[in-house]
Amino acid sequence: MNDPVTTLSEILGPKGWLSGTDAEPYLRDWLNRYGVTPLGVARPANTTEVATVVKACREAGLAVIPQGGNTGLCGGAVADRPNAVIVSLSRMTAIGEPDPESGSILVDAGVVLAALHEALEPHGLMFPMHLGAEGSARIGGLIGTNAGGSQAFRYGMMQDLVLGLEVVTPDGAVWDGLRAVQKDNAGYQLRKLYCGAEGTLGVVTRAVLRLYPTPKQRASALLVVSDFAAAVSFGAFLRDEAGEFLAGLEFFSDVGLALALKHLPDLAYQLETRGDVYLLVEVASGSPRVPLDEILNSALEWGMEQGLVVDGALANSGAQREQFWRLREEQPEGQRLEGEQLKHDISVPPGAIARFIEAGAKLCSDILPGVRMNPFGHLGDGNIHYNLSPPEGRADFDGKATAFAEALAALVTGMGGSFAAEHGLGRAKIAMAERNRSQAERALMARLKDAFDPLGTMNPGVLVRAG
Amino acid sequence: MNDPVTTLSEILGPKGWLSGTDAEPYLRDWLNRYGVTPLGVARPANTTEVATVVKACREAGLAVIPQGGNTGLCGGAVADRPNAVIVSLSRMTAIGEPDPESGSILVDAGVVLAALHEALEPHGLMFPMHLGAEGSARIGGLIGTNAGGSQAFRYGMMQDLVLGLEVVTPDGAVWDGLRAVQKDNAGYQLRKLYCGAEGTLGVVTRAVLRLYPTPKQRASALLVVSDFAAAVSFGAFLRDEAGEFLAGLEFFSDVGLALALKHLPDLAYQLETRGDVYLLVEVASGSPRVPLDEILNSALEWGMEQGLVVDGALANSGAQREQFWRLREEQPEGQRLEGEQLKHDISVPPGAIARFIEAGAKLCSDILPGVRMNPFGHLGDGNIHYNLSPPEGRADFDGKATAFAEALAALVTGMGGSFAAEHGLGRAKIAMAERNRSQAERALMARLKDAFDPLGTMNPGVLVRAG
Repeated sequence: MNDPVTTLSEILGPKGWLSGTDAEPYLRDWLNRYGVTPLGVARPANTTEVATVVKACREAGLAVIPQGGNTGLCGGAVADRPNAVIVSLSRMTAIGEPDPESGSILVDAGVVLAALHEALEPHGLMFPMHLGAEGSARIGGLIGTNAGGSQAFRYGMMQDLVLGLEVVTPDGAVWDGLRAVQKDNAGYQLRKLYCGAEGTLGVVTRAVLRLYPTPKQRASALLVVSDFAAAVSFGAFLRDEAGEFLAGLEFFSDVGLALALKHLPDLAYQLETRGDVYLLVEVASGSPRVPLDEILNSALEWGMEQGLVVDGALANSGAQREQFWRLREEQPEGQRLEGEQLKHDISVPPGAIARFIEAGAKLCSDILPGVRMNPFGHLGDGNIHYNLSPPEGRADFDGKATAFAEALAALVTGMGGSFAAEHGLGRAKIAMAERNRSQAERALMARLKDAFDPLGTMNPGVLVRAG
Repeated sequence: MNDPVTTLSEILGPKGWLSGTDAEPYLRDWLNRYGVTPLGVARPANTTEVATVVKACREAGLAVIPQGGNTGLCGGAVADRPNAVIVSLSRMTAIGEPDPESGSILVDAGVVLAALHEALEPHGLMFPMHLGAEGSARIGGLIGTNAGGSQAFRYGMMQDLVLGLEVVTPDGAVWDGLRAVQKDNAGYQLRKLYCGAEGTLGVVTRAVLRLYPTPKQRASALLVVSDFAAAVSFGAFLRDEAGEFLAGLEFFSDVGLALALKHLPDLAYQLETRGDVYLLVEVASGSPRVPLDEILNSALEWGMEQGLVVDGALANSGAQREQFWRLREEQPEGQRLEGEQLKHDISVPPGAIARFIEAGAKLCSDILPGVRMNPFGHLGDGNIHYNLSPPEGRADFDGKATAFAEALAALVTGMGGSFAAEHGLGRAKIAMAERNRSQAERALMARLKDAFDPLGTMNPGVLVRAG
């Protein structure tokens, strides 16, 4: 038997097999916390080549590490051992013709999300998935992590947007499940199972995605609300009164606003009042006959009458809309520029957000008095990026990072929520899952992994502990 | 060891253990095609009792057959052997308090869908799942078959509406996954996998479901369109122009209308024109400020200008709306009263409906000249109830039932659709799945079944062939 590296480099050619310095950009995760240097990086050009690589690795006893844009935050797309091959989908970037009558499109797993958005624009169609990393995240990685983003509460997560899949299974077989229908109940919902499987059950190579028509008009408003309880009540009112139009329902706190304004001098805050909590509301419609501004304005008036909304303004131009959105989008950057931080990717039932904020603040202050809580995120689905900065004047967290993470995980678990809302488990949160999820649940997952990947060579050590 | 029947009847008491004539209503499937008499019917009162029954059956080597409303159409909820116990969830009917701020509710698996609708009404909330059997179908069965219905294209199927689950696994353990958040990526999406698993991986005992606010206004229209191609084009236009309001987008043919009018004398058709295809369009909005009638009317005008819509009327009252809907809803009954029929539960990409109708008609006419095709269903997701009546003057299909089923399954498979769109595989369609789905796909499903139920006692012979 040949040396596997020689075999792979011969099969894939110089474009398809990277090692040495060429391979370097693929070896460490986004936050530079994980990544053992593997034998090399395969960049197959098509599904057949992916299958060939998977088979060759299996024969040689090498681990296969599927990788998309490598922008994941839990270390799920880099190797944990030298005897591994990273399989980057970055050369598989074909985007099919969208089918407007069916609302679907066939894409390669290596397509960058922003490239898909761009390709769809001239067709008046959209793929309703928006998140910070859309300029680098690839479809396969979004499927592997079951990405959510800011429109998930309206259009769903990847699992709701994937109609069909093609996957190279751990034994190197190709499962062609590239059907293009929502209603397909011929057996287990494998297409849904692969969403969120983090590459541990196979390599996703292509997908049929669900598309929606692009709205013809939108309106956006920035609001100051009196507190988190008011944000929850006003959010529920909006879902009731304007639910079918909601395209964004984001929140951030005054802590985060202050940090963003401090570190990003070109940011402007244009309302007269400051408060504890801010909402960014966006509504959109496919019909030119809907009085969107009026609907949004009357919701604002109701909120003010009820004492929930303190101040607010509708964007009067595209430029102002962009300024409003930047206040929300620069939350991570403002906090990053402030120095050390701890990120927590959690969700609670939307109605429990205010209770969580109160209980979380107490927990964190008990662990490290003066720690600054900066929650922001998606009001509609209760997904909170609950990030911390050290107390004023301190540069670190006094070694309490794990204490915060564990306390918050236990809190959200007790509230019916999740300590891994959007980013998955990867390598980073397996121990946390073991502490916060039942033995029965972990056993089902271990059995599932074992059934699909009995040799344990597909992304080992990710999502479930290697056997 | 005691005789298992004695054990179970002692544990469950007279309300919880039925045999003899008391058990009879549970033993045969809805279409009376399947069902071997088992040892008895367990009707546990709670999750603990379900687990006890599953454990007792496991120890005694008995098959466990989970059953909801027993209204399934593929024989998936009755026994295939005497050494079995049917576990009916019909005594577990608790409905929790809805949480309007989170849009969720906790329910027992035995809750009848219509009872849930009724319980939610006073709260201004809805569970957006509507289908013919809603007066008898239970939540657990709807989950097991991943039900769709007429609003799936807008709100999703059960897999999109289930936030959390509680399941008794085949070894009698209880998996408590009753979380109440959309975003939970802590491991494999077990909650989605159990949707459509047809009770072969465990017994679903409780669920947290997603709720939506009830719309405050609706408008409905009945249209005659020139042909199926026009129906597809007009459907695409509606999704583009009024997508966020669409609450119904149903179609039926003149064959079906004629049968319904012939056999149901109280039905009235109120338009002046007849045509080949009819659409029932319903739009709804949470906002009182949306000019729904105007939006629907202008879509109709556009359709007429384009030559797609031949005739049409908006319902001018609740009574007229009901008459319009009855024309669609009585399609199965009209055909049933005509005599023998063959039902096919298929889906194709919505844009391919017209091509399917043409190709399907040719296939069927070749098999049995003069056979009457009666397609009706859901335009928005391409789900077609493609039912056949014998040629005029004939009472049967000349023994061609399997030939029709197989030809249609191959046709939709080739079009990227499904031969089991809504009803699942059950016992009825396993052979069809083996012919129309790849070896790779069937192998994944068999491995999955084996991993979760290594002894093969959980609903054996359903969805995958018993090992």
